[in-house]
Amino acid sequence: MASNIRAQLKHCFSAASLRAYLAEFISTFLFVFATVGSAISARMATPDAASPDATALVATAVAQAFGLVAAVVIAADFSGGHVNPAVTFAFAVGGRIAVPTAVFYWASQLLGSTFACLVLHYMSAGQARIVAVPTTRISVLMTGFGAAILEGVMTFMVVYTVHVVGSGGGGGGRNKGLAATALGALAVGLVTGACVLASGPMTGASMNPARSFGPAVVSGAFGNQAVYWVGPMIGAGVAALVHQGVMAPSEPESPHGDVVAVVV
Amino acid sequence: MASNIRAQLKHCFSAASLRAYLAEFISTFLFVFATVGSAISARMATPDAASPDATALVATAVAQAFGLVAAVVIAADFSGGHVNPAVTFAFAVGGRIAVPTAVFYWASQLLGSTFACLVLHYMSAGQARIVAVPTTRISVLMTGFGAAILEGVMTFMVVYTVHVVGSGGGGGGRNKGLAATALGALAVGLVTGACVLASGPMTGASMNPARSFGPAVVSGAFGNQAVYWVGPMIGAGVAALVHQGVMAPSEPESPHGDVVAVVV
Amino acid sequence: MASNIRAQLKHCFSAASLRAYLAEFISTFLFVFATVGSAISARMATPDAASPDATALVATAVAQAFGLVAAVVIAADFSGGHVNPAVTFAFAVGGRIAVPTAVFYWASQLLGSTFACLVLHYMSAGQARIVAVPTTRISVLMTGFGAAILEGVMTFMVVYTVHVVGSGGGGGGRNKGLAATALGALAVGLVTGACVLASGPMTGASMNPARSFGPAVVSGAFGNQAVYWVGPMIGAGVAALVHQGVMAPSEPESPHGDVVAVVV
Amino acid sequence: MASNIRAQLKHCFSAASLRAYLAEFISTFLFVFATVGSAISARMATPDAASPDATALVATAVAQAFGLVAAVVIAADFSGGHVNPAVTFAFAVGGRIAVPTAVFYWASQLLGSTFACLVLHYMSAGQARIVAVPTTRISVLMTGFGAAILEGVMTFMVVYTVHVVGSGGGGGGRNKGLAATALGALAVGLVTGACVLASGPMTGASMNPARSFGPAVVSGAFGNQAVYWVGPMIGAGVAALVHQGVMAPSEPESPHGDVVAVVV
Repeated sequence: MASNIRAQLKHCFSAASLRAYLAEFISTFLFVFATVGSAISARMATPDAASPDATALVATAVAQAFGLVAAVVIAADFSGGHVNPAVTFAFAVGGRIAVPTAVFYWASQLLGSTFACLVLHYMSAGQARIVAVPTTRISVLMTGFGAAILEGVMTFMVVYTVHVVGSGGGGGGRNKGLAATALGALAVGLVTGACVLASGPMTGASMNPARSFGPAVVSGAFGNQAVYWVGPMIGAGVAALVHQGVMAPSEPESPHGDVVAVVV
Repeated sequence: MASNIRAQLKHCFSAASLRAYLAEFISTFLFVFATVGSAISARMATPDAASPDATALVATAVAQAFGLVAAVVIAADFSGGHVNPAVTFAFAVGGRIAVPTAVFYWASQLLGSTFACLVLHYMSAGQARIVAVPTTRISVLMTGFGAAILEGVMTFMVVYTVHVVGSGGGGGGRNKGLAATALGALAVGLVTGACVLASGPMTGASMNPARSFGPAVVSGAFGNQAVYWVGPMIGAGVAALVHQGVMAPSEPESPHGDVVAVVV
Repeated sequence: MASNIRAQLKHCFSAASLRAYLAEFISTFLFVFATVGSAISARMATPDAASPDATALVATAVAQAFGLVAAVVIAADFSGGHVNPAVTFAFAVGGRIAVPTAVFYWASQLLGSTFACLVLHYMSAGQARIVAVPTTRISVLMTGFGAAILEGVMTFMVVYTVHVVGSGGGGGGRNKGLAATALGALAVGLVTGACVLASGPMTGASMNPARSFGPAVVSGAFGNQAVYWVGPMIGAGVAALVHQGVMAPSEPESPHGDVVAVVV
Repeated sequence: MASNIRAQLKHCFSAASLRAYLAEFISTFLFVFATVGSAISARMATPDAASPDATALVATAVAQAFGLVAAVVIAADFSGGHVNPAVTFAFAVGGRIAVPTAVFYWASQLLGSTFACLVLHYMSAGQARIVAVPTTRISVLMTGFGAAILEGVMTFMVVYTVHVVGSGGGGGGRNKGLAATALGALAVGLVTGACVLASGPMTGASMNPARSFGPAVVSGAFGNQAVYWVGPMIGAGVAALVHQGVMAPSEPESPHGDVVAVVV
């Protein structure tokens, strides 16, 4: 048992695993840069609007969809293209990624998100006084509980899509070729964009704890972080259980093989 | 004959069929959540607009297109990815899905749509007084007859596209692989988005009785439901007849095989 | 010689050819319905705007891009998915479609466009007084000559893309499978959408004589039709010559084989 | 050594190389026409706006994304589809394109961009007084250094994506087929569109020296050109080093084979 843990930890520092962490870092950086940057830019372009308007909603939704497709594509062959702690959690629940590896994935994602927000904060330094790095916020008309439910439902849809298109399995992209990878990433990006359009003014449409974490760190506003962690994690876990338990129970996932593909 | 019906009914409760119903439920939930949610969110983002403006039109069109692509992709392998009672009707007209199965598809789709609207209604409870769940509405400048024709023409285009790309046949996606499934779904989603942009302010651009049914149930406003059922059903039936009777008459569809693929 | 012409004419009425004309009719109907409908809808959604604003530009560009992708996909296997008299002209210049067949393609495209505008005109009858079927118009700041050059340059880019992705060859889609067809159609649709965003307020961004013809017939306003025929035809012809003469001179196009594939 | 250089120079004028230059010229023309044209058109559509608003941001982002996808697709088989001096620089850094060939690529890209701006300037001559060809500009709230960093970071993401999807290698597209080419181009276009949405009002979101060069030549405003060359070049070089040195060190790139494929 102890040697098993030691072997797992050793695998966590293999060259392939370190590449996977770097891939998650770059892709989460890309996704959060696009998401948070588009919110800042839309605000800069409509400085007199009291709150983000419908055009800003379209801009951030398109930026998130486009950015996520690219982020998943470029990470798929190295890390499975999670780009989202909730996706990593779902694969851990389903036994398709080892827990120690998942922890390093989380760290990479949170670092990538924070670094993206730092770049946006300091490189557009003069603007920081005018347009701060925006956090995901809950509409004043809603409760935190309702927001958590909405975030959970939307994360379910995103993570369920990730499972169906077969992306996300550690190293799974390596064997699939560009076509399957890109088309799976497209589906994941489009469902995310659709959910942003559906709930942006309600909950900020995070569906991704890393996307909410970075702006909170940089702006120092950690309010409602629980909503953006608990809701998505539950939704992601349910998605993994529904897909692996109900929809595709006999699918030859070969979970341990997948884990090895990442860990080794 | 009686044993035939009994066999069909028995097939309606096979594990594969139950999975197909669940897939239709999830996908219709996703599509209607994106569609109705984006209408609510666009309204929240432009609270002082008298009526949905051009930006809201773009937002809902993109949400419907993106959401439908994902909805078809994630259901394709399990149910053929209908996500629309009119599509199911067309396949029943063409003999590619058994009528009892089609009835269960319809029920799943209507339930999915209603459940999505309930989530949107109750989770954003505080807003419900301000922004109610919006139903598909006919412009005051149009007649119900004209709206039914427009909805029928647009549904023809959507369902004809479904037939050409070969998606929608029960279980058809299972044998096609992700590439064909995703690219077929993309075409279906894009034609839907184009039609929303073309007729949103005229008829609400439903092209899908389930999309009109859920909001009507939750808001209690059943006006013009006939328009959103009769028009699309006729358009979908004509599409099936044109494709199977004129354009691809000798195509080896093996209808019974397809039906079995779903029913068994 | 005479028997050759007679044979060609006979081929023009083969079942495959009639299906090709119907496919061009349906696809051009779809494309023009989306294009003109989105212009009407954007105008309805912003009734107090003096002229189409930037949001209307985005709406029509997205509708044209999405609609064209679907239109090309659903016609590719039957007619090569021209959906544009300029594309048909380019293939005639390159010897990849017989002239009599091309004439029938043109007629199908012009009829499809006109029929789409008639449906939009009469089905939204009450609005016709408020929002007439809009024609492609040249900015008052521009000359007709400049508009023809711009339309020609943009049509060159669209038709050159059609040639590179290999779509458009009569019946060429039949042998390619859905993946190549859909991805080629995607490229054609996206370049069209980009050009609409680039020149919508300048020339109306037609790039397609059929798209300008239908609205002119229904509204009775034939001004500047020459601009929307001469410019695109020259651009399309140059695209065919550049691709077949310079870029891919030795490509085994087997023009006669292709023509036969349509004509027989 | 001298004969080696002479051989390289001779290869620079082979038929395949001349086609590659023409392909780069056409594709950069297309991309810059869409990008700069959409900025002009959005301005024409909102003449009373003090500065480009959020809708103009969406319009130019979509035009750049759509235009770049098409531009890469149509050039991939002939030149690898660089469409960007920074991409060419990255492949030169990685030894995947010979330096003399890269110089001709640069010239073709800069000429294509300048020609596109000339067409937009003179064909919409009347408007030139009202809406001049817009250059990429840095927000008054930012420093040139911050802008260069942002441009470098975004170009890193674009060029890293180019490397991962395997496009861009000289002649690499020839062996890949339309599916891989188009899906790779899609990822490149989408990440570019996402970055435009993220930073348009900050730096103009060039990520491409050619895109900044053409408008500067035509408008005579060369201010900040250094920002749009130094930042992207450094970002592109780092992307090449990270991909080839860290992420895919043992990939059988066969650089010399690729170079030959272009040069011969």
